[in-house]
Amino acid sequence: MEKIYLDNNATTKVDPLVMKKMLPFFVEKYGNPNSLHGFGTETHPAMGEALNSLYEGLNASDDSDIIVNSCGTESNNTVLKGIYFDIIHKGVKNHIITSQIEHPAIRHTCEFLESLGADVTYLPVNDDGIVTADILKEHIRKDQTALVSIMWANNETGLINPVKELAAVAHDNGALFHTDAVQAVGKVKVDVQDANVDFLTFSAHKFHGPKGVGGLYIKEGLNLTPLFHGGEQMGKKRAGTVNVAFMVGMGYALDLAVKALDFENQEVRRLRDKLEDAIMKIDDTIVIGKRSLRTPNTILVSFKGIEGEAFLWDLNWNGIAASTGSACSSEDLEADATFQAMHVDTDLSHTGVRFSLSRFTTEEEIDKAIEVIGKTVDRLRSISSTY
Amino acid sequence: MEKIYLDNNATTKVDPLVMKKMLPFFVEKYGNPNSLHGFGTETHPAMGEALNSLYEGLNASDDSDIIVNSCGTESNNTVLKGIYFDIIHKGVKNHIITSQIEHPAIRHTCEFLESLGADVTYLPVNDDGIVTADILKEHIRKDQTALVSIMWANNETGLINPVKELAAVAHDNGALFHTDAVQAVGKVKVDVQDANVDFLTFSAHKFHGPKGVGGLYIKEGLNLTPLFHGGEQMGKKRAGTVNVAFMVGMGYALDLAVKALDFENQEVRRLRDKLEDAIMKIDDTIVIGKRSLRTPNTILVSFKGIEGEAFLWDLNWNGIAASTGSACSSEDLEADATFQAMHVDTDLSHTGVRFSLSRFTTEEEIDKAIEVIGKTVDRLRSISSTY
Repeated sequence: MEKIYLDNNATTKVDPLVMKKMLPFFVEKYGNPNSLHGFGTETHPAMGEALNSLYEGLNASDDSDIIVNSCGTESNNTVLKGIYFDIIHKGVKNHIITSQIEHPAIRHTCEFLESLGADVTYLPVNDDGIVTADILKEHIRKDQTALVSIMWANNETGLINPVKELAAVAHDNGALFHTDAVQAVGKVKVDVQDANVDFLTFSAHKFHGPKGVGGLYIKEGLNLTPLFHGGEQMGKKRAGTVNVAFMVGMGYALDLAVKALDFENQEVRRLRDKLEDAIMKIDDTIVIGKRSLRTPNTILVSFKGIEGEAFLWDLNWNGIAASTGSACSSEDLEADATFQAMHVDTDLSHTGVRFSLSRFTTEEEIDKAIEVIGKTVDRLRSISSTY
Repeated sequence: MEKIYLDNNATTKVDPLVMKKMLPFFVEKYGNPNSLHGFGTETHPAMGEALNSLYEGLNASDDSDIIVNSCGTESNNTVLKGIYFDIIHKGVKNHIITSQIEHPAIRHTCEFLESLGADVTYLPVNDDGIVTADILKEHIRKDQTALVSIMWANNETGLINPVKELAAVAHDNGALFHTDAVQAVGKVKVDVQDANVDFLTFSAHKFHGPKGVGGLYIKEGLNLTPLFHGGEQMGKKRAGTVNVAFMVGMGYALDLAVKALDFENQEVRRLRDKLEDAIMKIDDTIVIGKRSLRTPNTILVSFKGIEGEAFLWDLNWNGIAASTGSACSSEDLEADATFQAMHVDTDLSHTGVRFSLSRFTTEEEIDKAIEVIGKTVDRLRSISSTY
């Protein structure tokens, strides 16, 4: 049985072209790029090319910084803890704003900062599941809020927040603006200058690069206390021997992803819509979030009377991989956070199943998934005590 | 011209066997191990095997923790900042002891903690370049020192500190003990239970694993505020999607390195000694540190009248890669820190050149290196203004 992978918001397959680009930097060109000899310097052209791809892919200005690090979680921790040390610990300001629908890498870091004395506001969402500029305006404190951190696209629903408007509100009130764009980069156009964000988090394994490498954009003129102190790598902004292979891989993965954005927006969207249309034909089914407000690859659906995890097991048995929500919190079923923020009925909040496609998803796979999902719903509802 | 790599303390080539072991986890078995479906769970056996190799390789007890993260710098930052948040920030104790010869990942992190109010003592070394138990006893403060962090082996000299004795002194005085063993693991036997350390840092790319993955041993019963807050990976001790491929690679790399320890201690040592004997026959040459006190692969040598960097350029021109010291501080020539701590003559402190071998170094390479080094010394001294 061919397995079908519909969990691309959890992680993606490394594009074979990306793998090919990385391969020379393990066994052959293995020098430390900070070394002065030929083994070190022979890595520089590929690293320069990778950095170019990152700057171009995000439309970052040459004077801004893009730090290559180990993951989106690292970027998010770097921003929040950097702001803590630079602003809050120094007694300049004490208020951070984030939202109720952030990834645990933001939420749990904010909770940690609260334990250190920071004042954190967790914004609600509107009826559409969006953090709007108006909601931010209600809670931001003029010249007292240090940082606003709102995700670009939600990992569970795919819902896209109006980052440009949110950044403008933050700046109007003297606050810095960060966005966790891990679920946006590679799926929708992300332009750091147009959105005018101060910090932006991204992660290669969400756009067919390897797991274990991410990035942080820092607008020109800004600085952050590093999360890693040590050597002088990344312009003293992130110590640690540079992972050359993965830096090269992330650069090329972003290059490929940006070039595939039209495909993502048309073909991936078409397949997602096909799957969604078929799912919506099943009785007592709710898809969370308006289609027009979502990334092109994501569906979060609730099948009444069917517990999400039971559904996943059945799908998995039939070779289809989906998710109840964030893989990062699968153990404690925290997937409910987004449902809660959206005031979705508690009955429904245990029934969420997320399907997330990628440019590697085929029409045959979607046709097969539609067939299996229909049968699975029938079977599980026939034995459901709540349906 | 075949290039000769004698800079294995900066980084090592990935063992082709390690590469082979990692390869399936990029394009084929790419699931997120935290996912519940088959794409996630199919990664678990290899991850379990890797963890076993790490526990066995360090002789860690089953009840202890080994966190897989992104590098040695991350491990060092995790320990020092964890201790800051857990003990210093809470006002329990305020004193940290480290040494003057630590890697920048320790020294600069300690300097950062000093800026936050921590009291840090940087221990000197004895005439042999060693941090002895007696030196520690002079500076430790009974029940006031929170942490002692002394490296197992020095990156520049290869000199090995008496970690077991140092840990005992720390414990006798109510302090925790951490060792940065990045330059020891894979070169000498490292047994965390025998040494009785509380925390131990290691990094795969120093023992023929990939760059971008490291580990932190945490003794059973101990806890540290994580450096990365977020998802529940690594038992909530290090958030972020697990880099499956590199975890698998690091486990296997350690397995191979531990199995090769006898080879390292005999063959690599024999080649190192051959190189060192030949170097010592050159007039006005000093090798730093007694041979018996060093890791088997390292030589730090000073050729009177020859500036270290000029020497490296000449070597590099002839296809030989060596170093003036830590690649992490190559830009500001911080290599002098160890010389300074050892009170080496200032004249000599700009002349240090480090050769570091590995199990991939061949006798032919050493013979060629001996020839080139001799000629290079002659040439540079013939044009030296100080010789």
